[in-house]
Amino acid sequence: MTGIEHVTNAAINAWKQQISRIDQIVAASSDADLEREVAPGRNRLYYLIGHLAAVHDRMFTVLGVGERRYAELDATFIENPDSKTPAIAATELRRIWSDVNSRLTAALEQVEPEAWLTRHNSVSDEDFAKNPLRHRLSVLTARTVHAAFHLGQMQLTQ
Amino acid sequence: MTGIEHVTNAAINAWKQQISRIDQIVAASSDADLEREVAPGRNRLYYLIGHLAAVHDRMFTVLGVGERRYAELDATFIENPDSKTPAIAATELRRIWSDVNSRLTAALEQVEPEAWLTRHNSVSDEDFAKNPLRHRLSVLTARTVHAAFHLGQMQLTQ
Repeated sequence: MTGIEHVTNAAINAWKQQISRIDQIVAASSDADLEREVAPGRNRLYYLIGHLAAVHDRMFTVLGVGERRYAELDATFIENPDSKTPAIAATELRRIWSDVNSRLTAALEQVEPEAWLTRHNSVSDEDFAKNPLRHRLSVLTARTVHAAFHLGQMQLTQ
Repeated sequence: MTGIEHVTNAAINAWKQQISRIDQIVAASSDADLEREVAPGRNRLYYLIGHLAAVHDRMFTVLGVGERRYAELDATFIENPDSKTPAIAATELRRIWSDVNSRLTAALEQVEPEAWLTRHNSVSDEDFAKNPLRHRLSVLTARTVHAAFHLGQMQLTQ
């Protein structure tokens, strides 16, 4: 392994660890449990799973590793707060969560080490030239941190 | 900047962002606010600040970037759950939080890019040879993720 590979493999491991911990909460929660709020009046488990699925689905596009499949989630789970209603069936939510993250993680593992340091698709060539830290690996780290942020909240329902 | 620098600088930025967000919560919270639980019966803000301060204080030793100063925090904030009592005064807790993180971040910024890929002090030479992903940068990423996990919880009190 090269130096860059030592870094990118460690970053992918950190990502997989967060997904795995969320998988465990999803598996341990009944459909009724998904209605639990992480604190009184705050987001339901159901909403946070949908939110993370939608944000991760967008990563295909931002990282250029495939096509996103569930753009219809954005309105419910990104652009609006928790409606406290079942927008889609819990079974479907679980299926989407699993589909997005299994395909995404597989795609991340196919990215060449050096390609992680190239610009992501939300930054222009010009802006990337000004700030070379806006690379794909920064996106992965930011999404790993974002997943951990919500995982900490989800853990409160367990 | 070299490729490794593009990675290590981005990782340090992610770290600083979490610390800054926690700093904002600490600054926005009165001493009485610190007694708030993140969810009913769960950890107080006070405890999570002490917990993160203790874990970050340990990073000096693990990363080999200086001496830790507050080993006495471990019993209260790592080895035991939230006692719901004021172990140390809120003013002192705030001072420690600020002292640990400002000195630690300054020390992290002094680490040479290539040195981030060398082993940390909780792994032996032999184990590091078997798993070269157990480098210092992995520790920084793990602690950044850990801070984000608790930040997500702390945010619920705001």
